[in-house]
Amino acid sequence: MEFISTEKTRDKLDIENIIEDYNNGLLKHGDIVEVKGSIHRLRIMSGFAFVVLRTPRRLFQCVYTDGEADFDINTIPEEACVIAKGKIVTDERCALGFEVHLTGMTVLSQPAELLPLVINKKELKLGIDVLLDNRAITLRNPRERAILKIADGVMCAFRNFLHSEGFTEFVAPKIVQAGAEGGADMFELDYFGQKAYLAQSPQMYKQMMVGVFTKVFTMSPVFRAEKHSTSRHINEFQGLDLEMGFINSFEDIMALEARMMVYIFNFLRTEYAMDLAELKVTLPEIKDIPKIKFMDAKNLIQEVYKRPYRDPNDLEPDEEKLIGKYFMEKYGSPFVFVTHYPTKKRPFYTMDDPENPEFTLSFDLLLNGTEVTTGGQRIHDYNEQVAKMQSRDMDINDFSDYLMMHKCGMPPHGGLGLGLERLVMRILNLDNIKYATAFPRDLNRLNP
Amino acid sequence: MEFISTEKTRDKLDIENIIEDYNNGLLKHGDIVEVKGSIHRLRIMSGFAFVVLRTPRRLFQCVYTDGEADFDINTIPEEACVIAKGKIVTDERCALGFEVHLTGMTVLSQPAELLPLVINKKELKLGIDVLLDNRAITLRNPRERAILKIADGVMCAFRNFLHSEGFTEFVAPKIVQAGAEGGADMFELDYFGQKAYLAQSPQMYKQMMVGVFTKVFTMSPVFRAEKHSTSRHINEFQGLDLEMGFINSFEDIMALEARMMVYIFNFLRTEYAMDLAELKVTLPEIKDIPKIKFMDAKNLIQEVYKRPYRDPNDLEPDEEKLIGKYFMEKYGSPFVFVTHYPTKKRPFYTMDDPENPEFTLSFDLLLNGTEVTTGGQRIHDYNEQVAKMQSRDMDINDFSDYLMMHKCGMPPHGGLGLGLERLVMRILNLDNIKYATAFPRDLNRLNP
Repeated sequence: MEFISTEKTRDKLDIENIIEDYNNGLLKHGDIVEVKGSIHRLRIMSGFAFVVLRTPRRLFQCVYTDGEADFDINTIPEEACVIAKGKIVTDERCALGFEVHLTGMTVLSQPAELLPLVINKKELKLGIDVLLDNRAITLRNPRERAILKIADGVMCAFRNFLHSEGFTEFVAPKIVQAGAEGGADMFELDYFGQKAYLAQSPQMYKQMMVGVFTKVFTMSPVFRAEKHSTSRHINEFQGLDLEMGFINSFEDIMALEARMMVYIFNFLRTEYAMDLAELKVTLPEIKDIPKIKFMDAKNLIQEVYKRPYRDPNDLEPDEEKLIGKYFMEKYGSPFVFVTHYPTKKRPFYTMDDPENPEFTLSFDLLLNGTEVTTGGQRIHDYNEQVAKMQSRDMDINDFSDYLMMHKCGMPPHGGLGLGLERLVMRILNLDNIKYATAFPRDLNRLNP
Repeated sequence: MEFISTEKTRDKLDIENIIEDYNNGLLKHGDIVEVKGSIHRLRIMSGFAFVVLRTPRRLFQCVYTDGEADFDINTIPEEACVIAKGKIVTDERCALGFEVHLTGMTVLSQPAELLPLVINKKELKLGIDVLLDNRAITLRNPRERAILKIADGVMCAFRNFLHSEGFTEFVAPKIVQAGAEGGADMFELDYFGQKAYLAQSPQMYKQMMVGVFTKVFTMSPVFRAEKHSTSRHINEFQGLDLEMGFINSFEDIMALEARMMVYIFNFLRTEYAMDLAELKVTLPEIKDIPKIKFMDAKNLIQEVYKRPYRDPNDLEPDEEKLIGKYFMEKYGSPFVFVTHYPTKKRPFYTMDDPENPEFTLSFDLLLNGTEVTTGGQRIHDYNEQVAKMQSRDMDINDFSDYLMMHKCGMPPHGGLGLGLERLVMRILNLDNIKYATAFPRDLNRLNP
C-alpha cells in the first residue's frame, strides 16, 4: 500500500525560502538556485535582458545575458509560468542584496495569446469597467493585488482578535424566509416552491447565538437589493458581524471595537508592511477614540462649518466628511464614534435610550469621514420587544422564531456589523469600493 | 470631548478569570466573588439548592442555603441571566477544586415564560424536527453547543493552517451568472431584471485567484438546489475551498490536505478538549494516509467483502463505508485517499490522466467511510481546456470570463473543497449532518 506523507518538505523553489537562506548565509554569491514564478515583465536589450518574476508576494529581478544561458529569452513570453535557474550574484544595489543571473529556464506553461491589456505597469490607469471586466488578469498587477492582500489581513485580524477575546464563530444561513430589517430591498428566490430571500443581515441569528455562547461572530456575504449606484455601495458584500451578551452598556461594544481597530491596524502594519508599501499607505497609530452624540455632532458641524442641516434624522455623506475632518484636525483621530441615533432611523430591535426614547443606544463608527460600522444595544426583554414591534405595526406572529429567544431569556446584549470592502476602502483611501473587492456586484455587474 | 479607551480591562465577572485567579492563588477559600451567567439548572431541596450557572464554555455549580443569602432562590427562574455573588469554598470533590456559596444575586433579565422544552438535561433526546424548530434554545444545551464549538475550531484551524502555508484568503461572489459545474441544480434569482444564480462552487474564482496569489482559499456558503433528502446532505453548506499553483502533481494537493488534517486534529485535541470531552469523542492520531486508485478500491471491496459492484463510474455510499472499514482494520487509518476517478464523473475542468484518459488526476478523501473532500488537478492549458469543453458540447462563448485566465497563462494547479458540516459530522461521528450546523436548510426547512 502507498501512503501520502504528513511530513512537510521545504519548497526550495519558493523565493521566500531562497531569501531566507541567503540572509542566513545558507546560500551565497555564486550558488545555483531555482525559483518558480510567472514572467511579469521582460526588458530585452541588446545582448542582455531583465526578467522580472512575479511570485506570490513580490517581484523579483533576474538578469539574462546572451551566451550565458542555455535558452533564448526571445522564445519566452510574458505570463509564462517558469522555473528559472541561475547563479546568485551579490549586488548591494538590489533591494534584496542579490539578483539571479540566469543559466536555464523550464517553461511550465505559456499563455495562448498576447494579453489584451498591459498589466505589468506600476499602476493600471484603466477605466473601472475595463479593470473589472478583466479581473482575472488585472488582479495580477502588484498594486491591484496588494489591495486584496490587505483584505485578507483585515479578515485574519478580525478573527484573531475576536478569538483572543473569547468569541465563537458560527455560520448564519443565507437563504431565509424573511428579513431581519423588515423584508424590503431583499433578493427573492424560489426555494423548492417556497418564496425565500437572501439574507440582508445575520442579525436574528447572531442574537440567538448570544444566548448560546455569549460572544459570537460570523463572517459571510450579505445581500442588499438596493438600487443605489454610488462609489461606496455594492450589492453583495462580506459582512463582519459580532454580537455579545452580559454588557453593562452599549459602550462595552464601542470599547471592544476600539481595541479591535488597534489590533487590525497593528496587524496590518507588521504583517502586511510590503503590501502597504506597494500601496504607499502609512497607517496612523490608533489612540483612544472620541465619541459624540448624534445631535451634538449635527449642531457642531452646523456651527463650525456654517452648514445648516436639512435632515434631522440622519447624517448626510457631507456631514460625515465634515465630522471626520473636525475630529482629525482637532484631535488627530481618524476615527470617531457618533452615538444616540434617532429611534425613527434605527431598526425595531434597537434599544431606546431610557433617558430620551426619541434616541437609541446605538452608534456608528466613522473612519476618515465615512461610516464603517453600525452597532448598538438590542432589546433583550420579551415584552419590551413585542411592544416596540407593535408600535411599528409589525405582526409578531411573523417573528415567532426570533422572539422565542427573548421569551426564553436573553442577557443584555448588543453588537455591530462591518462591511469588509468599505473598511478596506477607507483604510487605503480608495476612490471606489469596487476596487476593494475582487469580483464586485452592482446594479449592472454580474460578471466575472 | 469624551473618548472610548483602547485599553482592555479584565472582566472580573468572567468565570474563566476567576478560575485562573484561584489556580494562581490570587483568590482563595473565603474570598467573595461575582460570576455572570445564565441559570442553567436549579435543584431546590429542603433548606438548600444547587444552582448551576451556564457560562460560555462550562457549567458551574453554586450552592444556595436558606438564611445565608439575601434573596429567595424560589423567585429566580431557570434561564434568568444573573450576576451571582458568593464565597469561594474549597472542595476537592468539585471538578474545579472549589464551589461558590451564594450570598446574593443580581437578576439582569428573566424569561417571559416557562421554556417549551427541557434543555438542561445531559442529552436532548428530541426528534430532529423539534430540535431544529427550537434551535434558539436547544443550542443552549451543552452537548448541542459543543458540536458547534467544534465547528468553530475546524474553521479556525483551516485558516490558521493555510495562512501558515502561505495561502491568501479571498471572497468569491455568491450571485453569479452561470454555474461552474454547468448550471444544473442551482437556485435561480432575479437580479435587477437579469437572471442570476446562487453559486454552487467558487471553482472559477479560486482558479482565477491562483493566477494572482498562487495559493488561495475561501470560506463561504455554497448552495445546491438538489432534491435529495439524506442524512449527509444539506442545501446550503459552508464550503472550505482552496486552490494552489505550481504543483508538480495532484499529489501535492493530497499532501497538503494530509498535513491539514493533522493540524486540525491536533488543534481540536489541544484547544477544544473540553468540548470533545462533553461529546465523549477521542480523536485518533493521524499518521500518513493510505491512497488507492478508484478501480483498485472497487475491485478490492468486491474481492474482500464479496460485494459485486453495479456502478463502474462512482462509489456507492456502501462501498465508501467498506473502503473505510478495510483501511481502518488493515492500516489503522480513519482516512483514505481514493484517486483517479473516471473522467465521465468529473467536471470539465478536471485534468485527465495522461497515462489513461478514461480516468482523471483527481481524488476524494474518505473519513470513517464517508467522502469529506473532492479535489484534483485542473487543466491549465487554454487549448486543452477548450478541446475538453468542446468534446462535451459546451459553448466556449458562455465561458469567456473563465477562459480568459487560461488564455493569459496559468501555472499547473489544483485544489480541493471540503464541506464544514460534513467534516464535523464525520469527526464527531454524528448520525445526521443537520446536527453539525446551527440552522440547516433542506428540502422542507427554511426556518429558523
